[in-house]
Amino acid sequence: MRWTDTLIPTLREVAKEAEATSHQLLLKAGFIRKLSSGIYSYLPLGLKVLQRISEIVREEMNRSGALELLLPALQPAEIWKQSGRYETLGADKIAFRNRSDQEFVLGPTHEEVVTELAAAYFKTYQALPKILYQIQTKFRDEVRPRFGIIRTKEFIMKDAYSFDVDEAGLEKNYQLMYDTYLRIFKRLGLAVDSVAADPGIMGGNMSHEFMVRSPYGEDRIATCEGCHYLASRDIAARAIPKTKPRASSRKLEAFDTPNLKTIEEISNSFRLKPDQLIKTIFYVADGKPVAACVRGDHEVHEGKLRKLLGAQEIRLARPDEIERASQAPVGFTGPVGLKNVKMIADGDLISGSDFVAGANRKDQHLRHVNVDRDFQPDQVADIRYVQEGDACGECGGKLSLVTAMEVGHVFKLGTRYTKPFAGCYRGRDGKDYPMVMGCYGLGLNRILAAIVEQHHDEKGIKWPVSAAPYPVHLVTVNQREEKTSSAADEIYRELSEAGCDVLYDNRDERAGVKFNDADLIGSPLQVIVSDRNLKNGDLEVKTRCTLQSGMIERKELLPKLQSILREISR
Amino acid sequence: MRWTDTLIPTLREVAKEAEATSHQLLLKAGFIRKLSSGIYSYLPLGLKVLQRISEIVREEMNRSGALELLLPALQPAEIWKQSGRYETLGADKIAFRNRSDQEFVLGPTHEEVVTELAAAYFKTYQALPKILYQIQTKFRDEVRPRFGIIRTKEFIMKDAYSFDVDEAGLEKNYQLMYDTYLRIFKRLGLAVDSVAADPGIMGGNMSHEFMVRSPYGEDRIATCEGCHYLASRDIAARAIPKTKPRASSRKLEAFDTPNLKTIEEISNSFRLKPDQLIKTIFYVADGKPVAACVRGDHEVHEGKLRKLLGAQEIRLARPDEIERASQAPVGFTGPVGLKNVKMIADGDLISGSDFVAGANRKDQHLRHVNVDRDFQPDQVADIRYVQEGDACGECGGKLSLVTAMEVGHVFKLGTRYTKPFAGCYRGRDGKDYPMVMGCYGLGLNRILAAIVEQHHDEKGIKWPVSAAPYPVHLVTVNQREEKTSSAADEIYRELSEAGCDVLYDNRDERAGVKFNDADLIGSPLQVIVSDRNLKNGDLEVKTRCTLQSGMIERKELLPKLQSILREISR
Repeated sequence: MRWTDTLIPTLREVAKEAEATSHQLLLKAGFIRKLSSGIYSYLPLGLKVLQRISEIVREEMNRSGALELLLPALQPAEIWKQSGRYETLGADKIAFRNRSDQEFVLGPTHEEVVTELAAAYFKTYQALPKILYQIQTKFRDEVRPRFGIIRTKEFIMKDAYSFDVDEAGLEKNYQLMYDTYLRIFKRLGLAVDSVAADPGIMGGNMSHEFMVRSPYGEDRIATCEGCHYLASRDIAARAIPKTKPRASSRKLEAFDTPNLKTIEEISNSFRLKPDQLIKTIFYVADGKPVAACVRGDHEVHEGKLRKLLGAQEIRLARPDEIERASQAPVGFTGPVGLKNVKMIADGDLISGSDFVAGANRKDQHLRHVNVDRDFQPDQVADIRYVQEGDACGECGGKLSLVTAMEVGHVFKLGTRYTKPFAGCYRGRDGKDYPMVMGCYGLGLNRILAAIVEQHHDEKGIKWPVSAAPYPVHLVTVNQREEKTSSAADEIYRELSEAGCDVLYDNRDERAGVKFNDADLIGSPLQVIVSDRNLKNGDLEVKTRCTLQSGMIERKELLPKLQSILREISR
Repeated sequence: MRWTDTLIPTLREVAKEAEATSHQLLLKAGFIRKLSSGIYSYLPLGLKVLQRISEIVREEMNRSGALELLLPALQPAEIWKQSGRYETLGADKIAFRNRSDQEFVLGPTHEEVVTELAAAYFKTYQALPKILYQIQTKFRDEVRPRFGIIRTKEFIMKDAYSFDVDEAGLEKNYQLMYDTYLRIFKRLGLAVDSVAADPGIMGGNMSHEFMVRSPYGEDRIATCEGCHYLASRDIAARAIPKTKPRASSRKLEAFDTPNLKTIEEISNSFRLKPDQLIKTIFYVADGKPVAACVRGDHEVHEGKLRKLLGAQEIRLARPDEIERASQAPVGFTGPVGLKNVKMIADGDLISGSDFVAGANRKDQHLRHVNVDRDFQPDQVADIRYVQEGDACGECGGKLSLVTAMEVGHVFKLGTRYTKPFAGCYRGRDGKDYPMVMGCYGLGLNRILAAIVEQHHDEKGIKWPVSAAPYPVHLVTVNQREEKTSSAADEIYRELSEAGCDVLYDNRDERAGVKFNDADLIGSPLQVIVSDRNLKNGDLEVKTRCTLQSGMIERKELLPKLQSILREISR
């Protein structure tokens, strides 16, 4: 493509709001344009990368035996009610009523649609297993769009859904998709961590996220240097001390705290740090009250608590329930003297001593509260989110937290969707069973951004060959020199005819501007045509990722380029 | 692709609601599935055809020099207000407010988004001309979805937009796109009529529709056998008699019509056919009253009337305006004695005589009303929609009306959008001028349906090679016969390795079922493997479009198939 025939609006400066490196570089290099908060247009270069990513995803999905189809973005709200997700989608959901007062949801995901379809077609065990997938635009009313195309309201997903006769089949397909994803990331030059994660609103009982480490992600992964443990911060587990708590000689005593109810009020009034306090939070788990005690500077992790209790449902207790369970007004509850309530204490309460906690009496708290001596929890466990420096749940080593962005997610859904949609197959025994499902998502726009996050320097982007909009960038030093421009025209023709996708900067611009733009756009190879080198029958070839240049004889250009491209593709 | 590995749910029967042939066949052959009214999923075969069509469209658009990009479906409502189309879109518009109370429109078209973008980048005459295009999903709250994928709420369009310095440039790009469309239709085996049409809500002053004749279209085109005149019924012109009206000897006389105001009431009460009446409709054109007289069985064509008057704006008069202009109550107005109002009579009033019309007096009408003798219109002209049998406006021959579906539409927009979006370029003279725009749409799902409408027989679809999901359908007569299945396996491998896309029906089904499905799905070539023919080293090859079969030697299969495919592609 000749530069003057296309649209590459490179910029010298970009808006300050562009925090993420990928956001800055994609704007500067003319790949994307913002239409509105979290809504972007893909200019010719940006679209070309999206298409290359899609093609690799499609090839690998097809290779795995998955079948491509295309499902609608407009989905009747009824199917979301049928699955029970209409409410859980919450405010992220884009829904509207049409002129006939029918309600539609703009699909953020397609479990409902695909399960309805699979239920219609996969009626016997012979039809299974199957994996269906699509590459399609999704919508989400993202409350805080950020980081350019990393967090947007409209985005392209590859979403796949597996249907199996049993858990063993699901396990096999889950592994197949997992391996397919690793192959896709490898082909795209992406270093990705796969971590165990929380299935969230997808439901099901197991999931893995594929994470790209980057300061501009909104997720965090916990890693252990000791044992290479990796997990989403949402589910990462820490070890808790197995020792007895430190013995304290200070006497437990009550003191007046009139109207001081919150951790903040107490710590401000008595010059205490929040970590010297105990926070007692009441939940109702499967109908029964539970008191969860954590340090004042921490929050209870509901998911961990629920799992620990083996409860189906868990929710915060209402004020009347708290007062009934603690016999004390809200704000003055504490672990000491609490009766007839299951009590879980976080491990931090063992590492510390002489805490301040509510006295279970109006306007009073206790000081020098110690586990074991003053109260006996039913269980001491890990019930908060992990933090930097926590002990690894596997080996006891030190956990670190790394910021990362999610580029893919695989889920074992089980029968979460096939049951409400009557997605049953007839087994060999003539009986009907619900199909066992998995789902597998990849965010294509995020992958694009992630490649830039991992492949750039201060001059611009350094595309891997597989994702580059153009593998070769042809630059003339001086387009006005007839020998230069006619040699470049000929090279452009020759490479194009050989099937090599070339961006030919034929602008009548200063060489410096053109070189800067070439480094910014980031094609893996640059071919620089100058009168001086042409006199020796030479062309300069620069490899973007190393910034190294060398001379190549004009007549050997094509085979040499092909061999360098092959080499740097490895 | 092996049949047992994919999803091709062929059906024996389809729902009665499927009227259109393409709808029936695409359901029966397992190409599509309905999710909701006007909302379809594309199963693997359907998607494959959509992808082949997209690829041909993309190739031809790129060949024309147009640049592909991708614009968002989510559009802020403000830009629709800026162009003034927020209201004109009307109830077809899908709009919603998000959690931050911002309003969005789900794009049914992208003039606003692309003009904002072009205004930012095409700032000088050197940047022009440019054509931008995308292949993208559009949304419309279709009030009456019909005919399967012909009229839907969600559909894939190729939409292109040209930007030029002047009208001459637009003319050139308009012609370029027109020719590109003809090339696309030819490659897809579609016979298409291009007809002059009404730009409608797109605005601008010229457009052509590309129409596929089919009983399941919702448009009509007027054609003349005499001079090959072709036009959308919306704008087709008819000739009106140039002769004087017939002289009548019957005396004009008034008669009482108490409370009888409508054509229906008069014709019922006096046993008159509506075509014996004159209907007088009052308009306000650029602020001035106009009376339009047509036969009682016809409607006034507002567009024709507006054009005839050279008016910018036209609207129906309010009751008070009618009464002021006619000095008579609504329902009793007529042409006789009408003063100080411009009057346009339709040509039919010259062909007929002795009409009944309002007397411009309460509760009275006149009979034996004749043009010229009893009233003198300012102009006699064509101010109604053409009908079957009307005189051609070009040659006076007989017009026919044909039902058709629109698959493409090209528009000269001029500065309709560049003005409100300040889409100006700096000219050679240093002054700023608005860019001159065109827009060009193709409906890809409709093209898919149109191909089926034009290529089928009672057995099923007959895909042209260019659009076929699989050019070759390999069928075993008896999959259980080891020799047959192993020969078929080998043929499948051989053809696949040679890059030929084969659908291999490896099902253990009766031969009849498999042959019927092959005819239904409609691959251009069928290769039938049977033990009997294998004994002679032969394979049966059937051409779907002719239903003719012949024997081919096994060892010559690949070159023979390739040569037949080349031949039938012509």
